[in-house]
Amino acid sequence: MSSKARKVFSLMHDIGRAACGCPAHSQSFGGGISASALHKMTTMSSETPDYAFEMACSNIRFGPGVTQEVGMDFINLGAKQVAVMTDKTVGGLPIMEAVLDSLQKHHVNFEIFDKVRVEPTDESFQEAISFARENQFDAFLAVGGGSVMDTCKAANLYAFPTTAGTGSETTGVAIFDYTPLKAKTGIAHRSLRPLLGIVDPLHTVHMPTQVAAYSGFDVLCHALESYTAIPYHQRTPRPQNPINRPAYQGSNPISDIWSTHALRILKKYFKRAVYDPEDLEARSQMHLASVFAGVGFGNAGVHLCHGMSYPISGMVKKHQASDYQVDHPLVPHGLSVVITAPAVFEFTAPSNPERHLEAAGLLGADVTNAKKDDAGLILTDTLKTYMQDMKVENGIAEFGYKSDDIPALVKGTLPQKRVTVLAPKPQTEEDLSMLFEKSMRVY
Amino acid sequence: MSSKARKVFSLMHDIGRAACGCPAHSQSFGGGISASALHKMTTMSSETPDYAFEMACSNIRFGPGVTQEVGMDFINLGAKQVAVMTDKTVGGLPIMEAVLDSLQKHHVNFEIFDKVRVEPTDESFQEAISFARENQFDAFLAVGGGSVMDTCKAANLYAFPTTAGTGSETTGVAIFDYTPLKAKTGIAHRSLRPLLGIVDPLHTVHMPTQVAAYSGFDVLCHALESYTAIPYHQRTPRPQNPINRPAYQGSNPISDIWSTHALRILKKYFKRAVYDPEDLEARSQMHLASVFAGVGFGNAGVHLCHGMSYPISGMVKKHQASDYQVDHPLVPHGLSVVITAPAVFEFTAPSNPERHLEAAGLLGADVTNAKKDDAGLILTDTLKTYMQDMKVENGIAEFGYKSDDIPALVKGTLPQKRVTVLAPKPQTEEDLSMLFEKSMRVY
Repeated sequence: MSSKARKVFSLMHDIGRAACGCPAHSQSFGGGISASALHKMTTMSSETPDYAFEMACSNIRFGPGVTQEVGMDFINLGAKQVAVMTDKTVGGLPIMEAVLDSLQKHHVNFEIFDKVRVEPTDESFQEAISFARENQFDAFLAVGGGSVMDTCKAANLYAFPTTAGTGSETTGVAIFDYTPLKAKTGIAHRSLRPLLGIVDPLHTVHMPTQVAAYSGFDVLCHALESYTAIPYHQRTPRPQNPINRPAYQGSNPISDIWSTHALRILKKYFKRAVYDPEDLEARSQMHLASVFAGVGFGNAGVHLCHGMSYPISGMVKKHQASDYQVDHPLVPHGLSVVITAPAVFEFTAPSNPERHLEAAGLLGADVTNAKKDDAGLILTDTLKTYMQDMKVENGIAEFGYKSDDIPALVKGTLPQKRVTVLAPKPQTEEDLSMLFEKSMRVY
Repeated sequence: MSSKARKVFSLMHDIGRAACGCPAHSQSFGGGISASALHKMTTMSSETPDYAFEMACSNIRFGPGVTQEVGMDFINLGAKQVAVMTDKTVGGLPIMEAVLDSLQKHHVNFEIFDKVRVEPTDESFQEAISFARENQFDAFLAVGGGSVMDTCKAANLYAFPTTAGTGSETTGVAIFDYTPLKAKTGIAHRSLRPLLGIVDPLHTVHMPTQVAAYSGFDVLCHALESYTAIPYHQRTPRPQNPINRPAYQGSNPISDIWSTHALRILKKYFKRAVYDPEDLEARSQMHLASVFAGVGFGNAGVHLCHGMSYPISGMVKKHQASDYQVDHPLVPHGLSVVITAPAVFEFTAPSNPERHLEAAGLLGADVTNAKKDDAGLILTDTLKTYMQDMKVENGIAEFGYKSDDIPALVKGTLPQKRVTVLAPKPQTEEDLSMLFEKSMRVY
């Protein structure tokens, strides 16, 4: 098949530049290369880009009132002792009552840990881990939002989201503040992925307005960052062993489907869900959008908005979020993420103007006759409109940050390479300084 | 929260009729129902429709040449002895060489079973199961198309698709001919779902034209049937225990995303992939479309085309498929499925004309000013055009069936309730007779 093989690899070379995601353009195929030679391409350097992607995702169950099934799930799993993790706020809501009703009705043994910290730290993770170690748990149930789910992952298993934003129910990532560095960061491993995410939209009606807004912007950034992330076949290095292919592997044809569909839902339901807590259709759809964006970014990754958000929320001293019942200064996660989004996407747009324009279009911008050069401006304007409509603070200056703080914010971003390497273009320290400076005032 | 609860449940009642998929419209909520009462709705009859859906899917890895990683996967899994299953045709192709190279290079112990029957029977399943029992396998690798993957599932685990059509790499279903009834049927269980589907588009270049065409029509019917399946919240009964919620649960917002995206890819690449085996971009995209449609139908189900295809292929005596190297009469699966599609979708269109029109539009029909009443006709015409372009046989008469055979074909369809109950409208025996009669000649 040498002549056929030549044609095939020549074709691969041609289409490598097209949208199919084939990595062939990054290699040079001579005229006579054989299929088995291709299969044996094992001499790779750290510059060799990846050529494959994986799609993995937790099982998801969605339905209003589906909380009532959770007790049976644990019986079906053969669980003997279940750790139920939540925070003080969610612990007092009807969802917790519904969960406990189901566990009791089905005679599931459980212990409750309700000391999850909103925006967890290494210390709060440690407290949850100690609780887990002191008891002989064989299953874990997280009842709450991203903080609860991530804490539960740190001490392992099931997930039960109550806010539409985190996507944590679908990913193998847990995020926390690493206190010694005053910065948020994440641990990631496929085995952290929950077995089942139970999404019960009835519980979203208890979300206060600002929680709905900020968690919605978290969905929005998950979708935008994963859709604009570096393509998987440009990410380096190619893993020597597939077990080392990261969960955050760059944008790919499967994550694209999830991310773009989340953007479509956001356009239709985001504002409605924020303005009217009793608009169950809108809140249900936002709940689904958070799952979709979660599968998208769980397989593609996020980049600069998230990378820069970690020092923004980790170093904050004085901002008190309305609608969040916490005893410590807090920039809610979605807020810390979206606040740099206008600057970030203006910066990344030249790397792939088509995708940035498409995203703006999905969010409602008119891009009929838009020029590629205007992609950054159009997407940024679209984002600013959403942010103003949803009364988002006017920049990180409102969290107490001054220009003097920028070097520290940059220093806090540099270690976040797990995500920043997924940006579609590399960033110097000067680039990061510029992005923080531009984010001082957004409008 | 009684007043709030009243408003919420009143809203749920209203939106139950809308597109959000909420099942509330099928229940009657009085003015004063409480959240906990809703959670405790456990008095259900066999008429109570479901109110939740689940999304589950095997992990997928996609990349040209990714076959080389499979040896490492088994080492990573700690597999001590691997059963490699294939058929005589695929066993002689370069894919098998690449698989064995990788297994040997990574010192994986394995035994080969290459006696998989194209269109398996209970007897051929039994032969594979006996092979599995005679050896101490702790892992299974299927190298081939749907027949190989389904046989491997019957004797358990991994999957490795080579044709773009089956979607078997993503589902918990295995299909075979049950010889005593002369009919194809399926066994379904979540635990049959493969751990990982490895999709290597390099291998699709070896697919003969007619195999590409028929497997493409299998993708097309997977997508169309799952998209038009009964909505999950109209399927009865609601399971008393979530473990009994079927994998084939009806169309739902997540399966819809997969099914519609598969239709978009089919429009763009189906013909190119059939006409030019060396169009690697088109064959890669068809390979991905088969995965997407597989996740769609794996969570939503298929209905009449598949249900009626089982007796069509199970009872055939004389049809010999070109491009298939087999020693028995065979109507290839994709052909047996698509041959009734024009009749089926004309029959189902009145149940949900909007979806049928949308599907026709995604496949390329102009539906700008289409009337709902014409949905069946428009989708049917679109399908016939694809079928003619791809030189599909003109009806089941060409497989030797006569009107006298219709009662037997109907009798062979009746037991396929696993799938036929998922049609968007119920069918009488007269309906099924009419559908087979109309499928005698398609054009």
